[in-house]
Amino acid sequence: MITINFDKSPDGLVPAIVQDAVSGTVLMLAYVNREALEQTVRTGHAHYWSRSRKKLWKKGETSGHVQLVQEVRIDCDADTILYLVEQRGGAACHEGYQSCFYRRLEGDDLHIIGERIFDPESVYQK
Amino acid sequence: MITINFDKSPDGLVPAIVQDAVSGTVLMLAYVNREALEQTVRTGHAHYWSRSRKKLWKKGETSGHVQLVQEVRIDCDADTILYLVEQRGGAACHEGYQSCFYRRLEGDDLHIIGERIFDPESVYQK
Repeated sequence: MITINFDKSPDGLVPAIVQDAVSGTVLMLAYVNREALEQTVRTGHAHYWSRSRKKLWKKGETSGHVQLVQEVRIDCDADTILYLVEQRGGAACHEGYQSCFYRRLEGDDLHIIGERIFDPESVYQK
Repeated sequence: MITINFDKSPDGLVPAIVQDAVSGTVLMLAYVNREALEQTVRTGHAHYWSRSRKKLWKKGETSGHVQLVQEVRIDCDADTILYLVEQRGGAACHEGYQSCFYRRLEGDDLHIIGERIFDPESVYQK
């Protein structure tokens, strides 16, 4: 496995930016440790480390909205990763939007610019 | 200023993804604290917090390759920011590439996929 600066952050994680391989839309950001990156490369499905649940997490394991990773890029400092993905189900965000970045800052307000693709309540059991 | 979860990380920083507003290329990732975000919104020029130098940093202050921020987006958890920018000078990376993500993971190797736009030694005095 190539050298990535996992040790630069106290928790051994680096951020992974997730971009739609076709449209170029930035879908989300999550965190990976060495195990998550290795699982991603090995399986072709995006895996992350959940900071809140403190466990390895396969994107889409609940929703079915998996991410097929077509390319992994590394930045100049080797402390950030970029996944180019095919997003199954059309939506990366657990709120049902295509992208987690569905809100634009306008003055002191946030303006919703995305359209909901699915209803979160129908996908995630509370 | 809107609510952003700066307190989620121990250092009070959130990652900011930087995307070219026209081409959609992901240029870089850097970190912002509240002051950096406020300076960015106030001036229209991207500002970050340098983790290594521990100071506020205006992108392009040395190279002249400033970033004009056209839009600021916030993710669903309000703990990641997306700047859509016009990149002056054509290159965001201090290594002289358009994007910091100029290397692709291929097996255990990194393959350079970007072309150098400028020579770092001619821009940054050692």
